[in-house]
Amino acid sequence: MKQIGIVGGTGYTGVELIRMLSSHRGIEVSCLTSRSEAGKKVTSLYPWLPYSADLTFQEHSLDALSSCDLVFYATPNKIAMTEAAVLLERGVRVIDLSADFRFSDVALWEATYGGKHGAPDLLQEAVYGLPEKYRHKIAGARIIGNPGCYPTATALALMPLVEASALMESHIIVDGKSGASGAGRTAREDLIVAETSDNFRAYAADGHRHEPEMAHQISQMGQEVSVTFVPHLLPMIRGIEVTVYVSASLGIDDARRVFEARYDSEPFVSLAGIGKHPETRWVRGSNRCVIGLYQQRAGQLIISSVIDNLVRGAAGQAIQNMNLMLGFNEFDAIPVDALSP
Amino acid sequence: MKQIGIVGGTGYTGVELIRMLSSHRGIEVSCLTSRSEAGKKVTSLYPWLPYSADLTFQEHSLDALSSCDLVFYATPNKIAMTEAAVLLERGVRVIDLSADFRFSDVALWEATYGGKHGAPDLLQEAVYGLPEKYRHKIAGARIIGNPGCYPTATALALMPLVEASALMESHIIVDGKSGASGAGRTAREDLIVAETSDNFRAYAADGHRHEPEMAHQISQMGQEVSVTFVPHLLPMIRGIEVTVYVSASLGIDDARRVFEARYDSEPFVSLAGIGKHPETRWVRGSNRCVIGLYQQRAGQLIISSVIDNLVRGAAGQAIQNMNLMLGFNEFDAIPVDALSP
Amino acid sequence: MKQIGIVGGTGYTGVELIRMLSSHRGIEVSCLTSRSEAGKKVTSLYPWLPYSADLTFQEHSLDALSSCDLVFYATPNKIAMTEAAVLLERGVRVIDLSADFRFSDVALWEATYGGKHGAPDLLQEAVYGLPEKYRHKIAGARIIGNPGCYPTATALALMPLVEASALMESHIIVDGKSGASGAGRTAREDLIVAETSDNFRAYAADGHRHEPEMAHQISQMGQEVSVTFVPHLLPMIRGIEVTVYVSASLGIDDARRVFEARYDSEPFVSLAGIGKHPETRWVRGSNRCVIGLYQQRAGQLIISSVIDNLVRGAAGQAIQNMNLMLGFNEFDAIPVDALSP
Amino acid sequence: MKQIGIVGGTGYTGVELIRMLSSHRGIEVSCLTSRSEAGKKVTSLYPWLPYSADLTFQEHSLDALSSCDLVFYATPNKIAMTEAAVLLERGVRVIDLSADFRFSDVALWEATYGGKHGAPDLLQEAVYGLPEKYRHKIAGARIIGNPGCYPTATALALMPLVEASALMESHIIVDGKSGASGAGRTAREDLIVAETSDNFRAYAADGHRHEPEMAHQISQMGQEVSVTFVPHLLPMIRGIEVTVYVSASLGIDDARRVFEARYDSEPFVSLAGIGKHPETRWVRGSNRCVIGLYQQRAGQLIISSVIDNLVRGAAGQAIQNMNLMLGFNEFDAIPVDALSP
Repeated sequence: MKQIGIVGGTGYTGVELIRMLSSHRGIEVSCLTSRSEAGKKVTSLYPWLPYSADLTFQEHSLDALSSCDLVFYATPNKIAMTEAAVLLERGVRVIDLSADFRFSDVALWEATYGGKHGAPDLLQEAVYGLPEKYRHKIAGARIIGNPGCYPTATALALMPLVEASALMESHIIVDGKSGASGAGRTAREDLIVAETSDNFRAYAADGHRHEPEMAHQISQMGQEVSVTFVPHLLPMIRGIEVTVYVSASLGIDDARRVFEARYDSEPFVSLAGIGKHPETRWVRGSNRCVIGLYQQRAGQLIISSVIDNLVRGAAGQAIQNMNLMLGFNEFDAIPVDALSP
Repeated sequence: MKQIGIVGGTGYTGVELIRMLSSHRGIEVSCLTSRSEAGKKVTSLYPWLPYSADLTFQEHSLDALSSCDLVFYATPNKIAMTEAAVLLERGVRVIDLSADFRFSDVALWEATYGGKHGAPDLLQEAVYGLPEKYRHKIAGARIIGNPGCYPTATALALMPLVEASALMESHIIVDGKSGASGAGRTAREDLIVAETSDNFRAYAADGHRHEPEMAHQISQMGQEVSVTFVPHLLPMIRGIEVTVYVSASLGIDDARRVFEARYDSEPFVSLAGIGKHPETRWVRGSNRCVIGLYQQRAGQLIISSVIDNLVRGAAGQAIQNMNLMLGFNEFDAIPVDALSP
Repeated sequence: MKQIGIVGGTGYTGVELIRMLSSHRGIEVSCLTSRSEAGKKVTSLYPWLPYSADLTFQEHSLDALSSCDLVFYATPNKIAMTEAAVLLERGVRVIDLSADFRFSDVALWEATYGGKHGAPDLLQEAVYGLPEKYRHKIAGARIIGNPGCYPTATALALMPLVEASALMESHIIVDGKSGASGAGRTAREDLIVAETSDNFRAYAADGHRHEPEMAHQISQMGQEVSVTFVPHLLPMIRGIEVTVYVSASLGIDDARRVFEARYDSEPFVSLAGIGKHPETRWVRGSNRCVIGLYQQRAGQLIISSVIDNLVRGAAGQAIQNMNLMLGFNEFDAIPVDALSP
Repeated sequence: MKQIGIVGGTGYTGVELIRMLSSHRGIEVSCLTSRSEAGKKVTSLYPWLPYSADLTFQEHSLDALSSCDLVFYATPNKIAMTEAAVLLERGVRVIDLSADFRFSDVALWEATYGGKHGAPDLLQEAVYGLPEKYRHKIAGARIIGNPGCYPTATALALMPLVEASALMESHIIVDGKSGASGAGRTAREDLIVAETSDNFRAYAADGHRHEPEMAHQISQMGQEVSVTFVPHLLPMIRGIEVTVYVSASLGIDDARRVFEARYDSEPFVSLAGIGKHPETRWVRGSNRCVIGLYQQRAGQLIISSVIDNLVRGAAGQAIQNMNLMLGFNEFDAIPVDALSP
């Protein structure tokens, strides 16, 4: 029985970690820390998680976390980078769900997130936690930068084309849409039902922090790309869809074959049937990514990719990484079927 | 490995049966029939259920169903009543999710649903599938009438008071609200997003078919009651809340103690914390019922009860009954934690 | 051209006052005060109101307001009661949209809202701004307590029965449901889309401040009543529905005739067709109240009443009162047709 | 008092025509035809439109329509094209809200909509009803092809750039999102709340009929373009947002100046403040289009444009055209302020 720690279990990604890990038979959440909620029972905050009735938030303490085999950071940016080194030294492996360890390039991280990185050496060591690409590296890693939600949906939408060197132009356009849970569990006036329900808008159209992550990670896959990325806020809870526009050397039929071959043995990625469009409800609560391919004119492809931002875009993928690191079956405790309707 | 049949797996309750049963290790869905979709794969209709990739809808056939240990009817009313006798004779047990077997009183059924009942003898034998009340009878039953969604939420809200003979007046008021999935998977103009999203209204305020079921079943518990029941349509997908108004001989503190004692050992029923109000999202995708108790004036109690209409109000409770009938752990394959946010 | 002031124009009721008054040809909003937003243009906060492009929030000042003919208070409770006397002395009439002037009984107000009332003498003078009941008093009033949203929907649902002395028991049950805009424009975590969209729950089931207002105002109409009131939060923006359960001496047909006669000449109140149920979208953006009558058993009536909580339940009714007070046509600038879909 | 006819007043665009025209003081709806609802009162179908209590649907008849000054066709495609010639001969002007008269090129129309066009000669005469571009032609036209919803939002987003010859590449990408009312008032299973609420997906990603209209109309403005257009279905009622990606010779500041100059005197088009993003709720129920401009890399511009699909995208723009044709103030009876929250 492996001992697992969670730092910051009070945001949505933390709640999802708690929920999914409670059904994992090989681990035990032995340390759950929160600065704001220490002393409270999980079920007093989340009455919908009776399986976790025995869990109580405790004060944050690196010493307490040191007895774990692996610790998840479900914290805001710039926390994990100040603590990870200590845990690694003590033999504790780390999966960071924030953006601290998603770039191998310190300068790019600092340009994107501002300030000095707190653990630049670890940036080189950290593995980007996209299992379909880095499964073997992940298994042996001490520290994982768990991918962002939009970058996950986008990377999976492009990986087969990039690996096949099929992009004809380096500039790609990513039009993203996310449910409101992507903004986190925060009391913001612009997120209340009266403002955001039955409403739609772009945000950060001048530049969003996930754009450098996308460009960086896709370029690492084999073709240098630049990305224009505009995210939008959906009047709903869960789900991300990205529509990706590229120039490609493959026609639609060949592209489809390339995607099918690439994802044939991947249980968490699948293609929508021909003529169908992936729907976010198909992946509600699931770790799957579903992808559709379309063509309107020769030389250009359109890819629509959907994930659940809290599962595949955060906690589910993090647990998939944990399974790889700790030698469990990769699929343990990870939901595949979606809750729909 | 028990063999399970599902008749009519194309409505929401059928989809939910398929979804939940796919994670049950003691059974196999060996026969899935549909008049309209025979020949189609489950995943062609429900791409969000990859775990059921091997299942295909077949033509409806009592002979095929006869090889099953147990058959679920997830059909409209008045189908199961014409077929159940044949299956029972052949040693197949039946759980009917429609209203055909919810009343022990033929005259009441005929007054409520119209026409002649097709199997009046079986009405006497059929057990009302509310496990918290009839667990032992269910275990030995050949045929179960699975409770309606509103009656389930209401029966669990009143059972401790009725068993304690604490109702002071026989007339109770039940104000119910249901998500739109309760209306089924049907192309109705009044259910489309443009008509029903961001909208709220009562329906069937002159009398709803679940009212006789409520009154009948609660009366069976020990105190004769009459019920005024007004359902309302919520602009959302899943979830039922009923607010029940009763005159009671118990004060709020005593009432709370009675409920706690009654449900202490029931893993699928729990009380909301004092001062809290049960939320439908606490049971989204879960088989739990959460109940809150309130008092505004002496002699009167208010009970708020929430369930997921498709799980506890239909498929989840049906599988709970199946587990009891086939000797499995009552909780196998039944979700308890909810998907929230 | 009458000069109008608005105090606290930054909440939803303030925004709605601004929006509706901008189309009124007999008045001019000459003073719009806000402690938090002084100096800002209305359109910088509410880009959807270009008709009000000339309006700018200014510092709150009783002197500035003193040049107005009439001032609306769209403020939290306990502000208008400290300022109204000064304005009245200076000849400025006042419509308070908060709860400060809704009770004629000081003790009841203090028991409900806590602390000492700041203008107990004015409580006697203030008129409850329900035009269908107090049209003539309103026309001559110096100060109006504008009704609460739930009490408006409930009072209109009961007024014909109470005036006809048709209630058989003094205890009535009011099950209320409100869109999330009723909670105001406030950054509360429990109101964000991820928590409250696709969710439903009761609130304040132990007692809500609108209950004494309902009981007080209905009793004033002719029959002393006690009220059990449970409000619920709807996953949508605008709209209130109350379902009212009463014992009545009238059958359904007589009740219908009484309602028709009472509201025949009232352009803002109407009955739903027989067999129909009022929908909140029928009054979205409108000042109308639509009422449905139902009966399930002899001696009891069910009334479903819908309004737009921000229009009929706040700003629209306030402007209706203003029109009466200043001698305009009662219907000037008040929307009647609803925006649907 | 001009006499107005509406053919097909039972879809959402027809309902909106009825709603808005009821407040127009210069016209009278003297003929309202419907094949399916003849004989019914408008308020029996649309209880939220009491202002239209005097209107009754009548049998469709060209003779009855011939006494009108102007007739709106709010019908499916391929109806107006078979009747318009007769009405024009009799001196009745026509505004067609379907796609029959949006192209001047017969071959393009036939390639897009299939079959033979029923009035190819009129295609040459018909004016595309985009007032900001063709105001003077519209005023003198006998027949108007009222623009589609997506093309309206897109044309207004691009017109200033195209008129300034600022597009550097002819290929533009339009990522569109529409509320569910865009699919009309039709009983489709995939539009019910349980399927489409809390869900998001692309549709017609292989090619949508609005793409040729966009490309054709934008090209007519001065720069030949090809368009890749992918529409998506939003889980909400009203509102369209398009995000347009172009290569442009103007930097963001110059582009902003060009847009400001172009739309300075246009009351129905405005720019969002710098750093702001247009929201669909800013135009809910309004005829306005609000546009935001953004830049992420040199040489490329992003434009976000929002409209209400039923108002600016259909009925509101049609009435704007009617006002121009009949010599009314262009803004009569057209809502500008939006209903928000």
